[in-house]
Amino acid sequence: MVTNSFSAPKSLAVIGASQTPGKIGYVLVDNLIKSGYQGKIYPVHPKAKEILGIACYPAVEKIPDKVETAVFAVPAAKVLDIAEECGRKGVKNLVVLTAGFKETGREGAELEKSFLALCRQYDMRVLGPNCVGFVDTHTPINATFLKGFPAKGGIAFVSQSGAMLAAVLDWSMAAGIGYSKIYSLGNKADINEVDCIVEAAADPNTKVIICYLEDVACGSEFLRVLAEVTRKKPVIVLKSGTSQAGAQAASSHTGALAGSELAYDVAFKRCGVLRANSMSELFDLASLFVNQPIPRGKRVAVITNAGGPGIIATDKIEESSLSMARFTKETIDELRLNLPSEAGIYNPVDVLGDAKADRFQFALEKVLQDENVDSVVVLLCPVAVTQPVETARAMIELNKAYPDKPLIASYMGGPSLEEGTKMLSESGIPTFAMPEPAIGALAGMSTYGEVRVSSLNKKDNGYQPDLKTVKAVFYDVKRDNRLSLLGSEAAEVIAAYGVSATPTRLSQSPEEAAAVANEMGYPVVLKVASPKILHKTDVGGVKIGIKTADEVKSAYVNIMESVHKYLPAVVPHGIEVQKMAPKGVELIVGMTRDVQFGPMIAFGLGGIYVNLLKDVSFRLAHGLTLGEIKEMIAETKAYSLMKGFRGDKPVDMEAVCGVISRLAQLVTDFPEIVDVDINPIFAYERGVSALDVKITLS
Amino acid sequence: MVTNSFSAPKSLAVIGASQTPGKIGYVLVDNLIKSGYQGKIYPVHPKAKEILGIACYPAVEKIPDKVETAVFAVPAAKVLDIAEECGRKGVKNLVVLTAGFKETGREGAELEKSFLALCRQYDMRVLGPNCVGFVDTHTPINATFLKGFPAKGGIAFVSQSGAMLAAVLDWSMAAGIGYSKIYSLGNKADINEVDCIVEAAADPNTKVIICYLEDVACGSEFLRVLAEVTRKKPVIVLKSGTSQAGAQAASSHTGALAGSELAYDVAFKRCGVLRANSMSELFDLASLFVNQPIPRGKRVAVITNAGGPGIIATDKIEESSLSMARFTKETIDELRLNLPSEAGIYNPVDVLGDAKADRFQFALEKVLQDENVDSVVVLLCPVAVTQPVETARAMIELNKAYPDKPLIASYMGGPSLEEGTKMLSESGIPTFAMPEPAIGALAGMSTYGEVRVSSLNKKDNGYQPDLKTVKAVFYDVKRDNRLSLLGSEAAEVIAAYGVSATPTRLSQSPEEAAAVANEMGYPVVLKVASPKILHKTDVGGVKIGIKTADEVKSAYVNIMESVHKYLPAVVPHGIEVQKMAPKGVELIVGMTRDVQFGPMIAFGLGGIYVNLLKDVSFRLAHGLTLGEIKEMIAETKAYSLMKGFRGDKPVDMEAVCGVISRLAQLVTDFPEIVDVDINPIFAYERGVSALDVKITLS
Repeated sequence: MVTNSFSAPKSLAVIGASQTPGKIGYVLVDNLIKSGYQGKIYPVHPKAKEILGIACYPAVEKIPDKVETAVFAVPAAKVLDIAEECGRKGVKNLVVLTAGFKETGREGAELEKSFLALCRQYDMRVLGPNCVGFVDTHTPINATFLKGFPAKGGIAFVSQSGAMLAAVLDWSMAAGIGYSKIYSLGNKADINEVDCIVEAAADPNTKVIICYLEDVACGSEFLRVLAEVTRKKPVIVLKSGTSQAGAQAASSHTGALAGSELAYDVAFKRCGVLRANSMSELFDLASLFVNQPIPRGKRVAVITNAGGPGIIATDKIEESSLSMARFTKETIDELRLNLPSEAGIYNPVDVLGDAKADRFQFALEKVLQDENVDSVVVLLCPVAVTQPVETARAMIELNKAYPDKPLIASYMGGPSLEEGTKMLSESGIPTFAMPEPAIGALAGMSTYGEVRVSSLNKKDNGYQPDLKTVKAVFYDVKRDNRLSLLGSEAAEVIAAYGVSATPTRLSQSPEEAAAVANEMGYPVVLKVASPKILHKTDVGGVKIGIKTADEVKSAYVNIMESVHKYLPAVVPHGIEVQKMAPKGVELIVGMTRDVQFGPMIAFGLGGIYVNLLKDVSFRLAHGLTLGEIKEMIAETKAYSLMKGFRGDKPVDMEAVCGVISRLAQLVTDFPEIVDVDINPIFAYERGVSALDVKITLS
Repeated sequence: MVTNSFSAPKSLAVIGASQTPGKIGYVLVDNLIKSGYQGKIYPVHPKAKEILGIACYPAVEKIPDKVETAVFAVPAAKVLDIAEECGRKGVKNLVVLTAGFKETGREGAELEKSFLALCRQYDMRVLGPNCVGFVDTHTPINATFLKGFPAKGGIAFVSQSGAMLAAVLDWSMAAGIGYSKIYSLGNKADINEVDCIVEAAADPNTKVIICYLEDVACGSEFLRVLAEVTRKKPVIVLKSGTSQAGAQAASSHTGALAGSELAYDVAFKRCGVLRANSMSELFDLASLFVNQPIPRGKRVAVITNAGGPGIIATDKIEESSLSMARFTKETIDELRLNLPSEAGIYNPVDVLGDAKADRFQFALEKVLQDENVDSVVVLLCPVAVTQPVETARAMIELNKAYPDKPLIASYMGGPSLEEGTKMLSESGIPTFAMPEPAIGALAGMSTYGEVRVSSLNKKDNGYQPDLKTVKAVFYDVKRDNRLSLLGSEAAEVIAAYGVSATPTRLSQSPEEAAAVANEMGYPVVLKVASPKILHKTDVGGVKIGIKTADEVKSAYVNIMESVHKYLPAVVPHGIEVQKMAPKGVELIVGMTRDVQFGPMIAFGLGGIYVNLLKDVSFRLAHGLTLGEIKEMIAETKAYSLMKGFRGDKPVDMEAVCGVISRLAQLVTDFPEIVDVDINPIFAYERGVSALDVKITLS
């Protein structure tokens, strides 16, 4: 976390200040002055006496007073020396605009490393390098070299792209969107997105925090801190780089189905961060959050003076997570009595093309009063007698009178609606040119209302695992220099966590296999035992429904021959004999580890088609709650089967939840587990049985 | 089809013209004059001598010359009388702005019917009623009562919402988007979307046709005509009303999976119409099509002065149907030699934040020259030394020099980019504030390039069906007053079209069943025979794997008991004995009939989970080509199984295509077939076998 005063320094030195208009060192000083910054400004320049009327110093150490923050606009080669000087001077924070560090390759990365080590030594925090600086409109301060200064407002923007900030400042001036703070992260050598988010979260002027990120600096810190922050303030992230992130190298089904982008989705969901899908969605959401209350529910009322746009809005609402409100009888009666007979009195309310402001006003007040309505969208087309300004005025009044229900508008048109649109926007009613983005943003806000994390305290599932057994198995595997467990070993591990596996025993000859089968009772399944064979079915390594000892012996030979044909280099450990389990609902429960966010648990339809059907949902394993487990089950098609599909009896939901919960516990307890596939695991009316378990260690 | 001169009438009467500013009858005359209309204008008013300086007539019949078109702005009650007058006068076309017809309920619908009958009698065509009129900027004529007149341009807009036209005209003035024609369809009593599209398609000033539709007037006409039109000009449709269109009442799996919105998708795909997903997409696509060439392929080059937006654009390209171009070695060498060393020389090309116009120009020319590049997107953020105007100038030059490759821009910012943005837009380079919609529109254009229908001539599959057998089966079913065929009958029908079904025979006692089974050979399957039982498995109506005559007899009794328990009111026809087929890849082939677009063929993963997995694709049955069949197979996950999943042998693709093709032929030959489900049909290495066939007649 950065100090609370990071964006409100008492004094600030500009190192590399310049007398030449247009140069970064000049623009910086100019921006500081123009922003109305009240702290001390100390331009540093080897020769100049003054810059823009402010006294200059030849070096930081020559400044007579304390310097809290120093902004660097000097060549990369000088950064180390100047940082050393700043350290000696007792500067607290450095803002390094200079490029030529990590982003340029190996040499730059070395330089960045040395620079950071130096700053750590002097206990200085660093924003950048290779950033454009920061802005705080309330301090006020503009410590960037960008053109323009945004209006004051409640949005904090944290950006990993400096250029995007240039665009945002430019837009801000045209659209009148107000910002509280703007941070350019640059290379994130030290200060990262989490530091900035924490400062913004503590800032009373900030109502919503939006971010453009290409990665996060530290997954576990992000998860921990953001879960706290999002309970107080909404955080919206546009995360790019999805195309670079292919699925991870797949040593398991679960791994093949995951991928780092999915991990971001899962992590954001866990900590209550909203993910925007485009730049416009990011800013649309920001303008809603900063101006309107979070809706209490999903039920939207639409008021329109035009049929077509009303239908378009209805489509979009039904498509999204929102729903069309159903009015109370009172509302419908009032609308019927007071609107023209051709008006649409159900939702959407069509006040007709000849509606003046009074009709909009009447309908809007009625639906705002309706207890079945959580939010309202007003659509206006510039037809015959439309009064866009008067209608805007009525909306502004009613928005004040009903402050608990979000109100947004779509004013569809150009010049003739400009004044009304401006009035609405300035009064905090977000106004869009088309209905779809209005609905989209409202849906995002309603989702935030739901995902706001009520509690993240890990509820212990109360299960006491048999840690000794697991440790013993892992010890054996490591001693053998293996990474993958045999099926029988893996079954032992999950059994130690209370997950019942179908009885399975390793045999090393046809005769031994037959003896084992005789003991177990028929029918049995034979499976080749080799940690090197990932998909046993594909190499003829599995025979099912074996009913006699003779069949066992010949199946043993067949399997060995087939495996040898497909994989001549593999010498199996033997063949596993498994008691054939009665058919249940075939599920997969698995785990794969993400570099940033740690272990992720997967659940879905199991069987050999798991990669074809891709019916799998993911959650983070650490702190997995029963609520999340139920949610992840409900997201899959497997859930329909579990509830009893076409006359089947429902399966033991509690047992399935238990398996997921214990697997999460297992992979948390043993970080050396890289991948787990329990596929299939059969779920029955009572209990479950794991048929095939794969565990890989690091 | 309307006459070619519909939007260029030689003379036009305004019936209900008014001297009072603000009234529709006044605005109409005013709009006609202001649009520069060169034909004769005849205002009609009972008393007035002149309106806006033009001589008035007390009635249409008093006008001394011929009147080609009459625009009605009179109360609904007067429409019939005045239409009669117009008929006598020999007026060709009526444009009826008057509301109060079908849209108001039953009485209005009656009035509309009488009105239409009258117009038919006099051979008059009608636009409306309840419309806002039409515009042609090239005639020029503005026969609407809307404010404003759009700029001349190449977009024709056909809208079922009049209010949306008001918005569009307003936008047009702000954004400088030019239109050729605008039609307001109103109630579509006579002239419908197809008439307008045909007129626009024949118009040399129109380059692209865009529509807002809530339905189509006649599905078969739409399909036939649009397939022709889209070969010449792109047609883009925003179709609303998706939320009202639930899935059809499901008497079959196929029916449950379809629905009228899916039929629109399928129909649009068939006839080469692009479907827009939002209002902004509709207009974004229009601006691309009207200004830029259709790209020859999917390979996009991105040039940017900012890393972040470059990544965002790359994500969006990889997500869409487009792909990132891979430059030739020459291009990469040139970029390496001539751009700064920190520049990104692969795709996206990052010309860096300090790029002036010359660097953009150099990079743009190089990638335009690259044979591996089909289109180019330029992204510009307003950083330090950016030259938005000079860069725009360079882009305009290069767009002219390389007219075969579409060039679009995203100028991200506000006031500082306004001039450059305007220059680009005016020169026909579509320019967006954010990168995502730019890429989205480019993807749509590239899709059109692909779907442009090369040939729709129905290729006869050459199969001569046994029509006699089918007719005989249908005769029996109708004679029994049944709508559903028994399984054995349905199997006979598809066999008559060369689709082999697993041998199945009806039995009516346990003994008969056992005798049939003895004859067929074991194992067999027993299924209850009753057209009233839709899902036999759900009521215990199916027993598989029966190996002896005794088992047959007891299974017969069990099935009857179970069915009686679940459905006491149903008296089965008996029990079908089916030779048990070896397991193949389980598929579904089906048909359901859409009210608008006729029979649709379905194909996908079969079995009892078909409604759970929803892995089904659809095409129109009429004129189904082998190309479409292959496409629909390739769209499903079933395709992965058919190609041989995890070591299985591939199935007989030709036989599966044959089944789809013959089923299309069957339902085209026999329009009385309402629904077909062949589920499952097993596909083998050689051939296929239909296990369960359901056919319902109307």
